[in-house]
Amino acid sequence: MNGISRLSFNQITADRASLAGVVDACARHEIPYIGIWRHHLKDVGLDAAVRVVRDAGVRVSSVCRGGMFPAATREERGRRIDDNRRAIDEAAALGAPVLVLVCGAAPDRDIAAARQMVADGIAAIADYAAERGVLLGIEPLHPAFAAERSCITMLSEARQLAERFPLGRVGVIADVYHIWWDPDLYLEIERTAPRLLGFHVNDWLVPATNVLMNRGMMGEGVIELRRIRAAVDRTGYDGPIEVEIFNEEVWSMPIDELLPLIKERYLSCV
Amino acid sequence: MNGISRLSFNQITADRASLAGVVDACARHEIPYIGIWRHHLKDVGLDAAVRVVRDAGVRVSSVCRGGMFPAATREERGRRIDDNRRAIDEAAALGAPVLVLVCGAAPDRDIAAARQMVADGIAAIADYAAERGVLLGIEPLHPAFAAERSCITMLSEARQLAERFPLGRVGVIADVYHIWWDPDLYLEIERTAPRLLGFHVNDWLVPATNVLMNRGMMGEGVIELRRIRAAVDRTGYDGPIEVEIFNEEVWSMPIDELLPLIKERYLSCV
Repeated sequence: MNGISRLSFNQITADRASLAGVVDACARHEIPYIGIWRHHLKDVGLDAAVRVVRDAGVRVSSVCRGGMFPAATREERGRRIDDNRRAIDEAAALGAPVLVLVCGAAPDRDIAAARQMVADGIAAIADYAAERGVLLGIEPLHPAFAAERSCITMLSEARQLAERFPLGRVGVIADVYHIWWDPDLYLEIERTAPRLLGFHVNDWLVPATNVLMNRGMMGEGVIELRRIRAAVDRTGYDGPIEVEIFNEEVWSMPIDELLPLIKERYLSCV
Repeated sequence: MNGISRLSFNQITADRASLAGVVDACARHEIPYIGIWRHHLKDVGLDAAVRVVRDAGVRVSSVCRGGMFPAATREERGRRIDDNRRAIDEAAALGAPVLVLVCGAAPDRDIAAARQMVADGIAAIADYAAERGVLLGIEPLHPAFAAERSCITMLSEARQLAERFPLGRVGVIADVYHIWWDPDLYLEIERTAPRLLGFHVNDWLVPATNVLMNRGMMGEGVIELRRIRAAVDRTGYDGPIEVEIFNEEVWSMPIDELLPLIKERYLSCV
């Protein structure tokens, strides 16, 4: 199945399954990559996770998530930095080229100060990550999450933040759910080209009520996936394409039904 | 109460009350302006609404909403234009200086085509509005509404769209709920200066679940209202400031408790 040679199954898409179960299913369904979430590492321990992934012959496209830099006190911001270093160690151990950064929201009303804390946080971990061969991928999140998950919301903002650091250290993750509505989307994808470290696909369902859980299977929402994919292709990005879906219905599907559906939709819609 | 000389009560903030009830309450609580929604005009009829407002000595700051231009067929787009002309007539009859445009979402996945339909729609009604002395105010909506209510999401996009038309005909409405997260917010407010036709205040509550109904009373969320107000003041905008809150709890408050609370929060938080 050459058509799925870049497909990665982001583990959150089967959040109720174990890491071992997801890795085994990816191997059986010949999905070459997996994106790993750290809360699932805690279930089994890092060493066991590394063995499970290695034995199955599945490659890790990314680890999610680092970030969450802004906090009210210097002490807490320090603890976040420590946690990011652990995340980098985990990504390195798993052979993941990229740690995805969900940057975090302001602890108060001062979003400008929070953005500075994000820049400071990335600066504090950039060398550590480079020494371990892990790229840092800033994922801008949809503005609906600006108050709770990420003060970095737009591709342009993520790119400009990444550009403060040397090329080949800090870049950007483009997830269609977060960026599809951007009036400058295609221009920004083009500008992001040398910094693009990952591409995530899913869909925006209509009507939206709970924006966190509103992601859908590719083809079931309003996002122009083919057009965005073509723009990403033009940047020269040729790495894994992760399917990342937060959705109760998707989470309730048996994984041996879910993975064939994802392969089919990836081939027909992305 | 000189401090509330620019305060406008946007009628949606008491969506369960009648137009007559809201106008009467604004007069009793000395709130000088009201923002009127068209679905409440239907309840009483335009002529009666004009009399109610005039007799109470309350001024109409805006009528909401025109817009909703994109549609799948030429016929339907034509009907939307006709409806916008009726909205302009209503605004003119009520003495409202501005018709607020909620531009509408794409009927399919082609958001670029929808944006063109919005531009075409505004072009189709611009002369009609100018002849009747009604300004058209493009209100960019939060990107969470891009799929269902407005393909125009950012202040920059609304401004650039307005700039296709002569100054003094088409401008922009800035609502803090929709724009607070914008990484270029203060620069964009400054750029919007000559086109700014309205300023709406409320707050963004945390945690957010249903984004449509997540607006809060000023001071109860994460928006830096004072800082945004100061930026709006620097543009020279000195027109009405509308309080516009979609929120079940607010809608359940008796209006004679709601209006004093709004006055207090307007004075202390905006």
